[in-house]
Amino acid sequence: MLFIEKLRRIQRTNDSLLCIGLDPDVRKLPRSLRGEKNPQLAFNRRIIEATSDLVCAYKLNIAFYESTGERGYRTVHDTLTLIPRAVVSIGDGKRGDIGSTAEHQAMLLCADWKFDASTVSPYMGKDSVEPFIRRAEQGAFLLAVTSNEGSADFQHLRSGGKPLYEHVVLKAKEWNTKKNIGLVVGATRPAELKRIRSLVPDMPLLIPGIGAQKGDLRATIRYGCDAKGELAVINVGRSILYASGGADFAEAARSAALAMREEMNRIRESLRR
Amino acid sequence: MLFIEKLRRIQRTNDSLLCIGLDPDVRKLPRSLRGEKNPQLAFNRRIIEATSDLVCAYKLNIAFYESTGERGYRTVHDTLTLIPRAVVSIGDGKRGDIGSTAEHQAMLLCADWKFDASTVSPYMGKDSVEPFIRRAEQGAFLLAVTSNEGSADFQHLRSGGKPLYEHVVLKAKEWNTKKNIGLVVGATRPAELKRIRSLVPDMPLLIPGIGAQKGDLRATIRYGCDAKGELAVINVGRSILYASGGADFAEAARSAALAMREEMNRIRESLRR
Repeated sequence: MLFIEKLRRIQRTNDSLLCIGLDPDVRKLPRSLRGEKNPQLAFNRRIIEATSDLVCAYKLNIAFYESTGERGYRTVHDTLTLIPRAVVSIGDGKRGDIGSTAEHQAMLLCADWKFDASTVSPYMGKDSVEPFIRRAEQGAFLLAVTSNEGSADFQHLRSGGKPLYEHVVLKAKEWNTKKNIGLVVGATRPAELKRIRSLVPDMPLLIPGIGAQKGDLRATIRYGCDAKGELAVINVGRSILYASGGADFAEAARSAALAMREEMNRIRESLRR
Repeated sequence: MLFIEKLRRIQRTNDSLLCIGLDPDVRKLPRSLRGEKNPQLAFNRRIIEATSDLVCAYKLNIAFYESTGERGYRTVHDTLTLIPRAVVSIGDGKRGDIGSTAEHQAMLLCADWKFDASTVSPYMGKDSVEPFIRRAEQGAFLLAVTSNEGSADFQHLRSGGKPLYEHVVLKAKEWNTKKNIGLVVGATRPAELKRIRSLVPDMPLLIPGIGAQKGDLRATIRYGCDAKGELAVINVGRSILYASGGADFAEAARSAALAMREEMNRIRESLRR
């Protein structure tokens, strides 16, 4: 199945734009998991079991796994086996390099771990992205406008009357022959989100920055969705993962995810009218 | 010791601008290593033993390790223990992300593996770089102009009369309060190298693209070095690693490294006159 079809299907099945960021910081995990052989994996298992009917995707931030050392590779691998097949998995590593290196990066993310999509930094251009978009069943989200403060340093520089991120968007559009490219656009940048959606009416947008980073949810849904009210993949991490620090963390995460999905859907509904 | 001091010192001690790219592709390793428990590590050990008096640095391309799966983390770790302390180690992962994620990336590269320097993609701006330049003993090389074809897609876009890579160079200069920032500039781009060296007369430049990628060595040294004929870190990978595919690969690598160092030094000498 095409990547974009898989995304649309799960967004309809689970009636959800919510992507949960599985970025478990080992220093913040509930005490109740300390006895586990692999607390990160145990945490992910409980979160996935509690929320997989409420989300369209899970995004794994690779840095949170590789920073645990040797076991990180296996934790990613094993976490992926726990995600229901119908739910989209996103490997958030912000990779991209010269062709021969990008091949090796894609060997890990696309061929070994088999993420449905990866995030890729566009700075090195087309050949640095190509290994991630070779199969139409697997996609890549290119960084366009990120949610952090530093995004202003380069992404908004104007060239030929357009900011840099818009050049990225236009190249992404040009390279999208297999319909498996998406863009990362921070929820903290609603004006840019609006502009980008107008340029790519039918491209998936991965939108971080809701929750801990305080992005604007209404604007995110209004400008992030396509005309059908889909294809916005809205990532929420910390405010769901750490909704409770106690033994009831999974139930609390489910409540938080449920509330978040409902709030998103209420906004979608109000915009449809 | 400051990162830049360590680099200058080893460039003098070993009279060398040569950095060997330890990017062992498991599919290309000599047959003679196939019986080894960890052929990549055995390969690196032999290469390091054969060349560590001829180089200023080793650059480990993280993708070539992580793509081997579970054992990758340990291969990087164990390879680092084989590199003499005086020689600079560079973790080439082209990381960079929002602050909390970049912290985790730096936990791995700077705190756990303890690379002397890491490569970082600048697209996400200052907070994405900051965790890599917190300690003056450890540096970061920011991507400015890369050696691949795709570098033309964005790096040369002009904004305010200057190409994007020059904006990166100027920001790097501004952020360089601990004198531990360097830049990546491809050897395939001599005009840009010249321009960048004029903007940052005393910053280390990591220069890939010599050897398999056919960059111009004379121009690289002429424009890449500082006024003392130092601070260019010229990476050569495949043409040294695979100088022989036989059991004599380490001796062949030494000969190739020796020839490369001498060629570099001949050019340096001729430019001094």
